[in-house]
Amino acid sequence: MPTPPIETVLETCLYVDDLAAAHSFYTEVLGLRCVEFDAERHLFLDLEPGNLLLFLATSSERGGDVRGQEIPPHGARGPGHIAFMMSAEGLELWQATLRAQHIDIESVVDWPQGGRSIYFRDPAGNSLELAERRIWNVVEEEPAE
Amino acid sequence: MPTPPIETVLETCLYVDDLAAAHSFYTEVLGLRCVEFDAERHLFLDLEPGNLLLFLATSSERGGDVRGQEIPPHGARGPGHIAFMMSAEGLELWQATLRAQHIDIESVVDWPQGGRSIYFRDPAGNSLELAERRIWNVVEEEPAE
Repeated sequence: MPTPPIETVLETCLYVDDLAAAHSFYTEVLGLRCVEFDAERHLFLDLEPGNLLLFLATSSERGGDVRGQEIPPHGARGPGHIAFMMSAEGLELWQATLRAQHIDIESVVDWPQGGRSIYFRDPAGNSLELAERRIWNVVEEEPAE
Repeated sequence: MPTPPIETVLETCLYVDDLAAAHSFYTEVLGLRCVEFDAERHLFLDLEPGNLLLFLATSSERGGDVRGQEIPPHGARGPGHIAFMMSAEGLELWQATLRAQHIDIESVVDWPQGGRSIYFRDPAGNSLELAERRIWNVVEEEPAE
């Protein structure tokens, strides 16, 4: 039986320095659903088909233990990056919503292959992006006649 | 018109210190499909419904430019973490496949709520996990009679 291919991300992680600020930003400004919040270690957020995990690196780098089984340590410092998928119409509305909530829009990019990205920061300085899925369409060059 | 909810991650990022080693590991050992490889900046890998982006932090923290539009800088140091979704049967096969390729399995966790995770490292030291989706099922306590 062949090894089945790896196809989907189940957990995406970012690191923050203030979990209360992250909770407020990700649940109230971005409207994500909190799955689990431990004010001294992590905030887990529901995103189909997986989850977004925000950790205090000072905690996650100590690793963990589940009934004597080891959760390996991890933890990065400095601004990470993730993008969320959004429709073109949704992007227009989110630009207005973020501005209304005094979230600075750092950049707007209209991609050569079509589609738009908007970039802003979470309170920890991570670079967040809302982007249309089609920005990942590769532009195929027309073959020369 | 209400702002549409953020539902799905389009881009998940990790940082590495050797893109050639990352390319070999992620495409040959893990079997992911390379979408774009720039040996001095990034490796982009296809994962439904989005992509996994591996960056040299020394490059991504300089930001970028697309036709005069700014790609904001980002870049983290230290081991990050992601998990890939895998069936129970797939996990068994992957444990054997990783061992056969001399990839050290750092930990195996059987979760109280059901489901298994296996943990290993990429060449840069990032903590990778293959896990069943059901590890995210919350165990509801039976109400007391």
